[in-house]
Amino acid sequence: MIEDLVDRLRLVRSPGIGPVTYRQLIARFGTPAAALAAVPDLARRGGGKVPPLCARADAEREIAKVEKLGAKWLAVGQGLYPRLLAELEDAPPLLIVKGNLGLLDKPAVSIVGARNASAAACRFARGLAYDLGQNELVVVSGLARGIDSAAHDGAIESGTIGVVAGGVDIFYPPENEQRQKALYERGLVMAEMPPGTEPRARHFPYRNRIIAGMASGTVVVEAAPRSGSLITARLAAEAGREVMAVPGSPLDPRAQGCNQLIRDGATLVQTAVDVVEQVRPLQTQVRSPAEPYRPAEPMNGSDDALGIVEELLGPSPVPVDEIIRLSGAPSGAVQMALLELDLAGRLERHAGGKVSLRAA
Amino acid sequence: MIEDLVDRLRLVRSPGIGPVTYRQLIARFGTPAAALAAVPDLARRGGGKVPPLCARADAEREIAKVEKLGAKWLAVGQGLYPRLLAELEDAPPLLIVKGNLGLLDKPAVSIVGARNASAAACRFARGLAYDLGQNELVVVSGLARGIDSAAHDGAIESGTIGVVAGGVDIFYPPENEQRQKALYERGLVMAEMPPGTEPRARHFPYRNRIIAGMASGTVVVEAAPRSGSLITARLAAEAGREVMAVPGSPLDPRAQGCNQLIRDGATLVQTAVDVVEQVRPLQTQVRSPAEPYRPAEPMNGSDDALGIVEELLGPSPVPVDEIIRLSGAPSGAVQMALLELDLAGRLERHAGGKVSLRAA
Repeated sequence: MIEDLVDRLRLVRSPGIGPVTYRQLIARFGTPAAALAAVPDLARRGGGKVPPLCARADAEREIAKVEKLGAKWLAVGQGLYPRLLAELEDAPPLLIVKGNLGLLDKPAVSIVGARNASAAACRFARGLAYDLGQNELVVVSGLARGIDSAAHDGAIESGTIGVVAGGVDIFYPPENEQRQKALYERGLVMAEMPPGTEPRARHFPYRNRIIAGMASGTVVVEAAPRSGSLITARLAAEAGREVMAVPGSPLDPRAQGCNQLIRDGATLVQTAVDVVEQVRPLQTQVRSPAEPYRPAEPMNGSDDALGIVEELLGPSPVPVDEIIRLSGAPSGAVQMALLELDLAGRLERHAGGKVSLRAA
Repeated sequence: MIEDLVDRLRLVRSPGIGPVTYRQLIARFGTPAAALAAVPDLARRGGGKVPPLCARADAEREIAKVEKLGAKWLAVGQGLYPRLLAELEDAPPLLIVKGNLGLLDKPAVSIVGARNASAAACRFARGLAYDLGQNELVVVSGLARGIDSAAHDGAIESGTIGVVAGGVDIFYPPENEQRQKALYERGLVMAEMPPGTEPRARHFPYRNRIIAGMASGTVVVEAAPRSGSLITARLAAEAGREVMAVPGSPLDPRAQGCNQLIRDGATLVQTAVDVVEQVRPLQTQVRSPAEPYRPAEPMNGSDDALGIVEELLGPSPVPVDEIIRLSGAPSGAVQMALLELDLAGRLERHAGGKVSLRAA
């Protein structure tokens, strides 16, 4: 099993292999080992430089570090990896978690909001988190200042998961060190990045997709227009989850993001009862256990398909379905051609299953 | 024309003839005079005592009083009577108005809310009313304390209509005397009750239906649960008008009514732009000019129908359509039978076109 983890981690940490590519490689080749072995050839066929793969030694070092931290690995589709999160097309292939793993198996709601929220909103978030905990819901948030901190505090007794943008061992913001340590003990801290990673601006949207993806629904408490919380809300909506928002006076600029969300269709929530009512139907949907990836389709015709697919691609994003239809080639062959271009660093993947050719 | 007004007013002020009955009498008999003449016979056939009709002298006295006040009459479906209001099944047959009649012809939005609203909400209502005025919308409200007063103040330059629950000449609450006088001069004051009527609790829901019915949409600003403003909102929704509400923090009890309205489907509004966007489509709908009432259908079979209809009615409200279907009688005959029972004081009319037999 450790070999399998090493292979997975090498894939995940190799430049140019994002979560979508990872997922497709596993779908094609069945095992991480087979995928890893196939990457150089695929990239060559795609017409790019062979990307440097993450070295086995580096992967082993990271695994040792995680072990030393007392943290654990979760692989998508396996074991305690959160079921709802696994449904995302770009679900993180591997997660590092430290704390009470029992929380991973329970229905969860995310609470997000402004770092500079008003005292009243923080109080509201803390009370809401507490009440959701009394309703057997785990509260997920981002261990940031303001609303996030209040949400974790409210649910610390009942169960709360903090998803951090950097490494599982990094305290950011620094004043949240005690809070994060409390989550190691009584909650759970989750990270996608390697231990020791200081969070950077680009990490936060990735972190936000995990917060949105973990939960049946996301509640936004006080958020300015164009804030990170609204990105989380959008990601939740895209994942088909409930988006809920706490309203505020139009005279309060910090309420405008939430009010706009409600105008756009988010459910207005005033109490935990409103939230429970909203997420319960989703929770009780019978979900089949996470399926193993389907074995790869036969890979005939990829050579021909590659040329056709290259022809069809340009700098503007096009849905993969359209490429398949226009190419006249079998779907499996087109997917393989895209994977080859991807690994060769020549493909760009966009939201909504669209792809374009990367400028040379 | 004065004769016609006397007849209309005598019908309106006769006990037991409400707006729906009035409308049906005119529909059956074509003119107020003919309806007035028919009432005693109809009531006798319905099996009740013949109701005392409003005396001609009383009607003439009221008309003289209105003239002395410098106020005018509006008859449903005629002249400047507000088109949207005339669409209500229970539109007031006659209205008394004092002020700038030119406002009656313009698109209107109603603003309602708590009498004990917060200063911030009053400021918001005043600003909203002002901005709606700048968008060529007349602001309708109820000349009450709090939100109503703020709305009138904001729109005093651009145009505002105050609908009072009592007589057009009664200042209620007393401290609104100056405001109401300002509306006589620069806005418009509207009443359904005779001059001199002190408003009583039962008058307010009637007044609220006029506020809701006059406008393409109603905006609720700060309202507690189970408040009169929410009744106005419900009446607006029932009339097919836009219902809009200004949100507030769940921590503020005065915001709970509005937040609940939004949960129930009202549009969340933060600015006049949000309101204009919502009501403009309704305003630009081409409405045919108010139609004269259709001439009465032949009244055959009413005797037979009366017995059948009485059989079918009980103490529980039943839709008129169902009575027609179950009776097997022509629709006109059933309607006439209901009118007879109504005038005999034996019918109770309920919301949604339902009727029941009044307990003897």
